[in-house]
Amino acid sequence: MMLSRSVSICRNAYPQLSFSKSRILPVVNVGLFQLNGKENYSGGAGGATNTRGPLKWGAATIGGALGFAIFLKTQLERNTLSAAVEEAGTVRQGLPTYTMDDVSKHKTEKDKVWVIYNNGVYDITDYIAQHPGGNKILLGAGGDIGPYWDMYAQHKQPEMYKLLEKYRIGNILELPKKKESSKDDPYAKDPRRHPALIPSAEKPFNAEPPVSLLTQDFLTPNDLFFVRNHMPVPNVDIKDFKLDISIEGSKKSKVLTLDVLKKKFPSKTVATTLQCAGNRRSDMVDIKPVRGLNWGIAAISTAEWTGATLNDVLRYCGIDLDKVDCEHIQFEGMDAGPDGTTYGASIPIELARDLKNDIIVAYKMNGEDIPKDHGYPLRIIIPGVVGARQVKWLNKIVLSKDESFSHWQRRDYKGFNSSIDWHNVNFDTSQSIQFLPVQSAICEPENGQTLDDNEEVTVKGYAWSGGGRGIYRVDVSADGGKTWVSADIQPNGQSPYRSWAWTFWEVTVPIPKGHKGKVQLVCKACDSQYNVQPDSVEGIWNLRGCLSNAWHRITVNCPK
Amino acid sequence: MMLSRSVSICRNAYPQLSFSKSRILPVVNVGLFQLNGKENYSGGAGGATNTRGPLKWGAATIGGALGFAIFLKTQLERNTLSAAVEEAGTVRQGLPTYTMDDVSKHKTEKDKVWVIYNNGVYDITDYIAQHPGGNKILLGAGGDIGPYWDMYAQHKQPEMYKLLEKYRIGNILELPKKKESSKDDPYAKDPRRHPALIPSAEKPFNAEPPVSLLTQDFLTPNDLFFVRNHMPVPNVDIKDFKLDISIEGSKKSKVLTLDVLKKKFPSKTVATTLQCAGNRRSDMVDIKPVRGLNWGIAAISTAEWTGATLNDVLRYCGIDLDKVDCEHIQFEGMDAGPDGTTYGASIPIELARDLKNDIIVAYKMNGEDIPKDHGYPLRIIIPGVVGARQVKWLNKIVLSKDESFSHWQRRDYKGFNSSIDWHNVNFDTSQSIQFLPVQSAICEPENGQTLDDNEEVTVKGYAWSGGGRGIYRVDVSADGGKTWVSADIQPNGQSPYRSWAWTFWEVTVPIPKGHKGKVQLVCKACDSQYNVQPDSVEGIWNLRGCLSNAWHRITVNCPK
Repeated sequence: MMLSRSVSICRNAYPQLSFSKSRILPVVNVGLFQLNGKENYSGGAGGATNTRGPLKWGAATIGGALGFAIFLKTQLERNTLSAAVEEAGTVRQGLPTYTMDDVSKHKTEKDKVWVIYNNGVYDITDYIAQHPGGNKILLGAGGDIGPYWDMYAQHKQPEMYKLLEKYRIGNILELPKKKESSKDDPYAKDPRRHPALIPSAEKPFNAEPPVSLLTQDFLTPNDLFFVRNHMPVPNVDIKDFKLDISIEGSKKSKVLTLDVLKKKFPSKTVATTLQCAGNRRSDMVDIKPVRGLNWGIAAISTAEWTGATLNDVLRYCGIDLDKVDCEHIQFEGMDAGPDGTTYGASIPIELARDLKNDIIVAYKMNGEDIPKDHGYPLRIIIPGVVGARQVKWLNKIVLSKDESFSHWQRRDYKGFNSSIDWHNVNFDTSQSIQFLPVQSAICEPENGQTLDDNEEVTVKGYAWSGGGRGIYRVDVSADGGKTWVSADIQPNGQSPYRSWAWTFWEVTVPIPKGHKGKVQLVCKACDSQYNVQPDSVEGIWNLRGCLSNAWHRITVNCPK
Repeated sequence: MMLSRSVSICRNAYPQLSFSKSRILPVVNVGLFQLNGKENYSGGAGGATNTRGPLKWGAATIGGALGFAIFLKTQLERNTLSAAVEEAGTVRQGLPTYTMDDVSKHKTEKDKVWVIYNNGVYDITDYIAQHPGGNKILLGAGGDIGPYWDMYAQHKQPEMYKLLEKYRIGNILELPKKKESSKDDPYAKDPRRHPALIPSAEKPFNAEPPVSLLTQDFLTPNDLFFVRNHMPVPNVDIKDFKLDISIEGSKKSKVLTLDVLKKKFPSKTVATTLQCAGNRRSDMVDIKPVRGLNWGIAAISTAEWTGATLNDVLRYCGIDLDKVDCEHIQFEGMDAGPDGTTYGASIPIELARDLKNDIIVAYKMNGEDIPKDHGYPLRIIIPGVVGARQVKWLNKIVLSKDESFSHWQRRDYKGFNSSIDWHNVNFDTSQSIQFLPVQSAICEPENGQTLDDNEEVTVKGYAWSGGGRGIYRVDVSADGGKTWVSADIQPNGQSPYRSWAWTFWEVTVPIPKGHKGKVQLVCKACDSQYNVQPDSVEGIWNLRGCLSNAWHRITVNCPK
């Protein structure tokens, strides 16, 4: 019963075991299983881990009443599903046996597209044209599609399993072995990651989801959430875990266990977007080199975070945010460099006072324990603020007169004008980035994509602003910025002045005549305080490549 | 003793009588009495109305301890001053008599520069080069300098009065008569304005101060504060004045007299910048016509407003901002159009909750009763928000489920993309402007000015952002935006997250070689949430010419 075990593993145990065959395929960045109509979200999800986001948010259904009905439906369908699952991917006698290497050579329609599901090998070349999600299916080409099916639960229908078996051509020789890692490698115990993630660095691991999957769900599935690690992922023994809270220079301090955090305080859930200060850095690199990870447009993701409010936790420790005589709240993580220095950051206490009941000492991400890559067991969530301050693997909170003395607070994540270089930079006179400015990007079509139509193009993407500013307008141009059409904004269910999560948008724009085969698509957003994105990357370029929020421009190929 | 009467009138009675000779000179926009070093502010001000701002703020002295010492000094100097004042401008026998017309013909050094002070006529041509404020002195050329001396009290030194008399050439024939106005003219009772104001419309009166005076004082003198009227200025009989506060659809309502507002509640003072939504509209007009007043860069000013907090006032009326079941707070003024429609606006209640203790039902502006043009006797002050919502002549506050139904809330002061014109505009789908985006402008040098130096230029200006966002950085370029130097920021004494007032900045930048006589100076600001100004006017152009905050560009002439 290897198969049903495998499915139940996906359901419960995260993350190493669920994607046992991950990291084996080079990722083809063209998009996989697109949603086949929002209504399909409610189909027999069978308990796959990441359906919660789309179930709750997918069709902008923000209320929770739907949830229980879906739960019942899911239970009823589970038996049927299990039967079908047991058929899928089991070893079938009389078929040829292939190695992982054999399969990995079949990634294009020309070479035939082969995929693996459990022990089965399939040639799905003839199915590609029928795939409701278009060529996103090619993200899994030459490798294991299990992690994608786990992610997009609409695949887990009895019909789909049966359909898959129609394309069966063989059995896989062996499951891939876990890569041997040196005992000296501090990253040896890093978790396995979803194969769709596109790394900008391996050690420490940093990765963004493929653009084609980024705005698939309002809540980014945990496995696809962009990862920004500064050091190896700490292995936390949950029995010994404690959160230490203190006021610098005072004897007032308190130590809380995870159990106390979960049971002592009412839990609060906030849907909030996290963005790396370096999201879209690659646009700056195109102008002039900068230091930093070469992020595309997807170092941004959204999750529902659940935990105790910072305000409640501090009160329990006898600290009143409004009265305490401190200037900053410092957060320290358990991730450490070779010299034992841990990651740290801080926010001004004034900012904490304003956000008070929305700052979460979080222990859940999209309804699950926070995954290892995202801060297990605790992460501080500070809506509207740059990702760098939302410290993962949180084990210390210190109220202080000073900003955190960490490198990342004082020598990184600050803004400069475009004439400052590494010879004249002065980090002391620049202010730490906290709330982020307005941002938007085009996710569909993708840069370089060839369109089917030369009359019009449907453009989709995300927009977000820091400081709780919602999105009032996104303008899209198909003539490089000469004329604009305002997009339809998908409400995110949050107020325009306390809007922590991103906004998806969509608009169909006419393709200008005489385009000569190339069309530049541009988008720019306007937030609820009428802040707009700057026109050019040149005007905001800076030596660290932070705060890259110029108009987003892509070029697509059009049939003449 | 006409003279001492005239001075005492300036001191106490505002506004009609104090500038009895105003509105007679066409304003020359080149700048008058510049401050002769900050320390001179404390010189024998003699109670002139507008010294309070500079006294308190001029040299970034934010504390108030200085005030009492200055008061004592002022009292001691008053006797000496009075004697000198009695000499200045009295009719002197044996001198020729001139008409206003005669004087108005002498405005340039070529034609000789004549001015009037009380009954005296002076030829100050030979003094111009010595004037510590440079050629700002020419703002008063050909007319009455009394209003300027009232404004900039450093002139009111015995030595200055004596110096002035040295240039005496005659007596003025008659004081200008108040312009006859038709009984049918609804604007007949509008107040007299300071002659330095540059009108963008006469009826209703709308005007901005000259750029050369805009950033002279951190707190804009009341007489120079930009004026944005939508209708005639109402004449309020203070005895009958009442503020009406109610919840729509409820019987809860209360009527407060001015006396109750002043005595019943602790007074709070907030220094805040007000900006018209159309400030810098002229930059948009340069691209393509828009509808609206052709404002330059000075439809923005700063004052200290004193009054009761809206929160206190509502609580007194039994209304708890945090609990009341309403969506908007509507404000209504007493200024009315021909059909009796009064000016109205509203803010979302959520915004009021956030700003709660900083929203002021104000009865004082820079320490005086609010001048008629600025809302006497009451104005609602909502820091960080567009001027249009800060209703003047306030006499009604209504808590409602709806936004104000006024034209100015629903059919004006909204944002659109640059492809929207009057044929396809839909005001219903756009959101009312509330908090304003980041802004900055160069005030010195002025556009078109000829510099003395071709090596470097000192550039000064203002920067401001809505929503309480302070200013982190202002970048200035002398090569049209290729290279940038960050300016010195003069702290405004407010927190970066609750910064309601503007920031002044200054920087000296080298003039690029090979400039061919023309140099483009550019400035752009970055606020405390790292929002930046957009590069181009083209990208933000809109049919109403609102929200004009592109990089500010001016061209100056350089000696080769």
